[in-house]
Amino acid sequence: MSQYQDLKQACYDANMQLPKLGLVLFTFGNASVVDRAKNVFAIKPSGVPYDTLTPEDIVIVDFDNNIVEGKKRPSSDTKTHALLFKQWPEIGGIVHTHSTYATAWAQTQTDIPILGTTHADHLTTDVPCAPPMADELIQGDYEHQTGWQIIQEFERRGISPTEVEMILVGNHAPFTWGKTVEKAVYNSAVLEEIARLAYLSCTLRPEVPRLKDALIRKHYERKHGANSYYGQ
Amino acid sequence: MSQYQDLKQACYDANMQLPKLGLVLFTFGNASVVDRAKNVFAIKPSGVPYDTLTPEDIVIVDFDNNIVEGKKRPSSDTKTHALLFKQWPEIGGIVHTHSTYATAWAQTQTDIPILGTTHADHLTTDVPCAPPMADELIQGDYEHQTGWQIIQEFERRGISPTEVEMILVGNHAPFTWGKTVEKAVYNSAVLEEIARLAYLSCTLRPEVPRLKDALIRKHYERKHGANSYYGQ
Amino acid sequence: MSQYQDLKQACYDANMQLPKLGLVLFTFGNASVVDRAKNVFAIKPSGVPYDTLTPEDIVIVDFDNNIVEGKKRPSSDTKTHALLFKQWPEIGGIVHTHSTYATAWAQTQTDIPILGTTHADHLTTDVPCAPPMADELIQGDYEHQTGWQIIQEFERRGISPTEVEMILVGNHAPFTWGKTVEKAVYNSAVLEEIARLAYLSCTLRPEVPRLKDALIRKHYERKHGANSYYGQ
Amino acid sequence: MSQYQDLKQACYDANMQLPKLGLVLFTFGNASVVDRAKNVFAIKPSGVPYDTLTPEDIVIVDFDNNIVEGKKRPSSDTKTHALLFKQWPEIGGIVHTHSTYATAWAQTQTDIPILGTTHADHLTTDVPCAPPMADELIQGDYEHQTGWQIIQEFERRGISPTEVEMILVGNHAPFTWGKTVEKAVYNSAVLEEIARLAYLSCTLRPEVPRLKDALIRKHYERKHGANSYYGQ
Repeated sequence: MSQYQDLKQACYDANMQLPKLGLVLFTFGNASVVDRAKNVFAIKPSGVPYDTLTPEDIVIVDFDNNIVEGKKRPSSDTKTHALLFKQWPEIGGIVHTHSTYATAWAQTQTDIPILGTTHADHLTTDVPCAPPMADELIQGDYEHQTGWQIIQEFERRGISPTEVEMILVGNHAPFTWGKTVEKAVYNSAVLEEIARLAYLSCTLRPEVPRLKDALIRKHYERKHGANSYYGQ
Repeated sequence: MSQYQDLKQACYDANMQLPKLGLVLFTFGNASVVDRAKNVFAIKPSGVPYDTLTPEDIVIVDFDNNIVEGKKRPSSDTKTHALLFKQWPEIGGIVHTHSTYATAWAQTQTDIPILGTTHADHLTTDVPCAPPMADELIQGDYEHQTGWQIIQEFERRGISPTEVEMILVGNHAPFTWGKTVEKAVYNSAVLEEIARLAYLSCTLRPEVPRLKDALIRKHYERKHGANSYYGQ
Repeated sequence: MSQYQDLKQACYDANMQLPKLGLVLFTFGNASVVDRAKNVFAIKPSGVPYDTLTPEDIVIVDFDNNIVEGKKRPSSDTKTHALLFKQWPEIGGIVHTHSTYATAWAQTQTDIPILGTTHADHLTTDVPCAPPMADELIQGDYEHQTGWQIIQEFERRGISPTEVEMILVGNHAPFTWGKTVEKAVYNSAVLEEIARLAYLSCTLRPEVPRLKDALIRKHYERKHGANSYYGQ
Repeated sequence: MSQYQDLKQACYDANMQLPKLGLVLFTFGNASVVDRAKNVFAIKPSGVPYDTLTPEDIVIVDFDNNIVEGKKRPSSDTKTHALLFKQWPEIGGIVHTHSTYATAWAQTQTDIPILGTTHADHLTTDVPCAPPMADELIQGDYEHQTGWQIIQEFERRGISPTEVEMILVGNHAPFTWGKTVEKAVYNSAVLEEIARLAYLSCTLRPEVPRLKDALIRKHYERKHGANSYYGQ
């Protein structure tokens, strides 16, 4: 039996949540889980439909994109996952989808403005949208560069991947992550709902103002602060 | 066996309606039921997913926010519920959700205008949207102040919680209530549909006029007047 | 056993299609079926939820609004149905809903413009929207007047209820009908989809032109003309 | 047993996917499969509801619209399918629907602009929208002319049906195709999602720019190029 059995199962379980939560059509998405002790991660194979996917199909890859175990080709987005896991040691799982409203925002190359407490319960900034990649990078090692595109956007903005667990890649689609892959999946569904709420508010009243700072801080502290009092 | 068993069950049943009616994502909502004889109310525990919730998880709280029975921490919105139950003796249940269209309106800090008879069948005014709270109140006892924000908005407008059983808290989300918690749940679904209809009408024709007074009065009287003739 | 058993069953079956087709929330809708030999029609009782409705609950009413059989109070819209059945001998069933997109159009008091062949497959005109009723009529016998509002709008426009089997009552919601109640239910779902398509086209491109006459005639003839070749 | 049994079954299976994927209301759609060795294709019968459809109902037709086998009348769009199969020997299956967002775009007579990588993963051009047919053609052999309308639009634009496997027929609705009918069905669902994403992006930010060329080429090459690395 594989030493990665549990890792594969966790990755499988997370991937199967994506269609259940209405976040993927066909194979447009993937989830990965890291094992920090072994320096590998498990990821969905490329192009395999969710209704035929099994835990045995999951591929084990190291942070330099080498396949460690698995008979199938890993997700075409594997190099993006690998770089994020390598550069951001705090994160335990990554989810990529083309969920409808988040992707529609990414297509407009615009941050999702923070407009309400649903958003502020999860992050205190706008949802960042990284600008499209420079042409010479696209023609190079594209998925690896997508990882750098994300990381450098966080550096440019001075935000941290433990505070902001989601990004829109301009013209493409969202990536989310978290301490665990369950959190990454949760963030993916939350991002889609935030994106939908903001779409509705912005089309209803284009000049809608951002949420004021006192409310941003309050709601985030309620859930994430030192004196947080949400949950058990 | 607890003396609050029936109250807990009623609260559990009401909470379980919310995901079924498509009004909550994950744990973004809660319902409460009051027992006026015992001066307590039952409320959902904080952050417990609906698919693992049991009647035993429900928490019993008094109107001054003391936990009377229950092993879990009550909803983070408990103080808002407590104040409404204390100040408004006519109401029997309260529901809070982040339902999509109602929340999108709350994010725009705008009343939902009364545009049709679907709305007028339930209330004769626009759905009020309370302006965001002053910063010093946010930094204080926030959820308690949210209760005052709601109550004072009703006083300012000269409307009564038995006539208007719903409000949008600006930048946040809706609260609804009713004589019973079943009515509060019903109002929550009605509000979401009213909000959706108004969103569609306003994006289709931004200058859409409010419903004329004669129709407002007629439809409300049909369902709620002295000579009402709707229902059995 | 009642002589109206089959009529009640047909009415029950038609009503149960409405929630299944996503056209009603709670009790916001009703379907009726006429028996032309007996000069009565069967209609849903008022305010009874669909999940507890039984064929025995259905009420039999004559064209002057007298209850012929049934223990429950008939739909509050009964007088509208009665007048349409009385004035329009060609029709066999009527459906009233507050389906979302059709109602949103009714709230804007605007006809739904004919923009494509999905619409033209069913009618060759815009979907008419009757202007809101005069105040003195609202305060009188409102539901009876709603029937006149519909009939007079058809007369004013010179259209016939066998050619155009649907209308929006301004500020209120749609009514549809047909030779049979099954056709009326079908028309209700078609209207909702036509209304949704037109909403999307009009918000995407506000100056979208109406469908040209040659296409209107062709698609309608395909399904309804003397040489129709759609269906078996 | 019919020599076309497998062909009928494949056609039946493809048609049954359409309501399952949410692409058709009632009978508003049809799928066909070709047998290149026998120069015939299988197509859905006209106006038969999906829930009563059986493989035996499927009709076998040749490229000149003669019925080869089958007791039912074939789809009213049969002549369009026949011409596409005759003129485009590379394609194996065709799907026609009135799916909501794609049809809403067709009603505006506008190409769906390429705005993101979800689109570019499938085609490198805007989704073409053929202008409405000239009046004299509409009054003639309409469905046959619809086939020419599609083919001539591809010629006019200098695009090939193996590179672009979808079109909007202006004022009408989409057609998709593929090497197999499974691919045609897949393309139909992909087109609907692309149309929905573009609707949302365009209503959120009307001046949204088209995707830049480097990204278009990269994403398409990833899936379809000589060195494609998507899928197994």
